Formats: sequence, structure tokens, C-alpha cells
Amino acid sequence: MGGIALYSLCAADGVRHYSPHVWKAILALRHKGLEFDLRPVSFADIPRIAGGGFDSVPVLDDRGHRLGDSFGIALHLEAAHSGPSLFPGAGQQALARLVEHHCDTVLNPPLSVIVVRRMHDMMDPPDQAHFRAARQRRFGASVEELAARSAGEAAHFPEKLALMRRILTGQDWVAGEAPGFADHILFGTLQWHRICMGAPLLTAKDPVEQWFRRCAAHYAIPLASG
Amino acid sequence: MGGIALYSLCAADGVRHYSPHVWKAILALRHKGLEFDLRPVSFADIPRIAGGGFDSVPVLDDRGHRLGDSFGIALHLEAAHSGPSLFPGAGQQALARLVEHHCDTVLNPPLSVIVVRRMHDMMDPPDQAHFRAARQRRFGASVEELAARSAGEAAHFPEKLALMRRILTGQDWVAGEAPGFADHILFGTLQWHRICMGAPLLTAKDPVEQWFRRCAAHYAIPLASG
Repeated sequence: MGGIALYSLCAADGVRHYSPHVWKAILALRHKGLEFDLRPVSFADIPRIAGGGFDSVPVLDDRGHRLGDSFGIALHLEAAHSGPSLFPGAGQQALARLVEHHCDTVLNPPLSVIVVRRMHDMMDPPDQAHFRAARQRRFGASVEELAARSAGEAAHFPEKLALMRRILTGQDWVAGEAPGFADHILFGTLQWHRICMGAPLLTAKDPVEQWFRRCAAHYAIPLASG
Repeated sequence: MGGIALYSLCAADGVRHYSPHVWKAILALRHKGLEFDLRPVSFADIPRIAGGGFDSVPVLDDRGHRLGDSFGIALHLEAAHSGPSLFPGAGQQALARLVEHHCDTVLNPPLSVIVVRRMHDMMDPPDQAHFRAARQRRFGASVEELAARSAGEAAHFPEKLALMRRILTGQDWVAGEAPGFADHILFGTLQWHRICMGAPLLTAKDPVEQWFRRCAAHYAIPLASG
């Protein structure tokens, strides 16, 4: 009951936290200046987290108050804790929702394909079996069939960041003059790629890559290397 | 050179201004409290507007400074005129860009099909010929072929407003506590449907419909009826 715990899907090495949604919550917690215990779990552990009732991560346990869904976690942290606002200014919740929707519909589907082989290979065997079955259900395709499309998706992926590039050419942060949860959402999405692939997604001159590094530095997140 | 003029595509009746992008500019001008002269044009008139150089509307002539593109017009009005801000708070430009992208990619393509027959029928014959050729180029289909898909698209259209409905369930305005250009963009998009169809798109209880009426009332826009 004491502190704050965040449950996070993790590679078999216990080190590489790869879930984009967990990363959104990690940045939100850091943004609020909160100490927390990051607890790595496997797919098999999820039904047992915090007594059950969750089927995905992140799960936040805030001194006994348990909740899932990264956006819900951000709203809870904003309401329950002082510290810098996650939604600094009018319309910031709407902005964050739109960024989330944009990531979910435009960026995540190709990223799912791009990283599929590396995600699979970083898991322990029981998680690999779970992951294979889940991909088959969601995409109607095997890990190997999806992996065969990876290079094609990767070649076109930078174009899909056009909207974010346009925004980040005109301002330092997605949320505007200061970072907010809208930044955390995009960061989580791209960090998922970075953790899985261990390499930058974009050239160093790309405004999105420059923002990604700025965001990592701001929240003291070491950049993953392969 | 005296005042402000806004050039707007108009039905053959000279009354029904149907372009979603022009409506964005109309609301932005009203938001800033600016007087302006709304100048109806046909497709055939566009190459002659303000001495030429434009191939679409809106075109704004602000005391001799001429520019197109509704977002560019909003940025110009914000920079050049006092009055209430079109981007009230941090991140509001980013929010407006995301709403624009959402409208352009999720809402406008089905709306183009839903309203195609009524748009065509409200034009004068030269504009009809222009419109037919433009639809054929863009969709590879005739007005009649597109119109045959109209009812199917209309049946599913309310679902496509899910994101905006979620936002407008939690707050009165897309931009947050007060209306801004993010609202004008969505209004323009739905007003395009309203002007063409002369009837509400959604049920009176729908939070998006309630916002649409609130927005029309706020800017003193009479609601079109068929």
C-alpha cells in the first residue's frame, strides 16, 4: 500500500521494457516528479497483477488504487498529484486524445509489423507462444508472414510521421511550449520501435528524431542501442 | 484596398456557400470580430480571383494582402489582427492541425460521397461540368457512381465522429473551455454536409450535434434547412 508501482511488459532479459503504452505512463510519472517502482511482467503474469482483473499493461498501483489504460493513468495522476501539469493549457486533453488516436490508427499498425520479429525474439518462450497466438488472431498472419512485410513498411514509415514532423518543425514540443502528455504518447510509440530495434528510426536531422532525443533527455531516459 | 473580402464557392442560387474550407475562414473572421465582404464565386471564377494565382477557395483579401488556404488564413488573422485569439493557449496550433488532419483523412472522404449528388445539383451548369470532371479525376468514378454509395457511407458516418464525440462529451469546445480555430475546422466540415443536405447529420442528443448547434449560435450562423 505504500508507494506507486507500475507493471510493465518486459523482454526475457528483464531489462527491455517494450510496451508503448507503458512508456506513456513512465513519462507521465516522471513528468509529475513521482517516485515509482517499475515491475517487469510477462504476458503470463498479467492475469495475476494486483489480484487480477487486468488483461493488458500498463497497470498502475497508486497506494492501493489500481487502474489500467495509459490515458486513464494520466488523468488519475493529474487529478491525484501535484507537480507539473500533464495537460498544460486549454485543449490539452483534446490534443492528447488526438495524438493518441493518430498513433493508434496511423503509426501503430505499421510499427506492429516493423518490429514483430525483434519483439518476438526478445521474449521468453511462453511469451513467444502467447505473442504468436495474439498476432495470428489480430492480423490473421504468422510472425514470419508479418516479418516478411517489415522492410516494406519500414521504407514508408517516415512519411507517416508527416503530421508530427509539421508540428515539431514549428514548436519544440507536441504539447506546445512545454512537454505534456501529448508528447508522452508519441514518445511511447516511437520508444517501442527504439527498444525493439535498438537503433534510430529516423535520420539525425529529422525534426521528429530531434524531438525524440530532446524528450528522452528531458525525462532522463537513456537512448536504447542495439 | 479598403476592407476585407473572402471569396467563397457558392451554389447557383448565390446563397448556399458550401465549401468546408471557406466556412473555417468565415468562423475565424467572426471569431476575431472582423467585418468582411463575402464574395460568392463559381469554379470558373477562381482563376480570376484577385488577379489570378489561386486554384481553390477560400481566398482572403485583407486590405490588398491576398492569401489562400484556410489554416494560413487563420494564422494571418491571428498575427495581423487583435481580438479574441484563434489559438487560445499552449498547443492550440498543434491541436488545430490535428483536427484538420483528422477531418481531411477520416471525415472528408466519406462526406465527399455522401453529399456528391446534392452538391452537383446545387451548382450552375458550367460548375457541374467542372465538378464532374474533378470527381472523375479524384475518385475515378462518376457523380452517379459515387451517389450510389452515398446511403451506405451515411449509415456508417456517425461512427466516424467517435473521437470528436469523446472530446465533446468531456468539454464544451474542441479547443477546450473556449472556442478556437480547432472548432472552426470541425464546424466547416460538418457545415458542408448541412448546407448540401439541409438537414441535421446526427440526432439532437448527440454531443457532436449539440456542439454543432452551440457553435452555430455562438457565431450567429443560421442553421440551414432543406
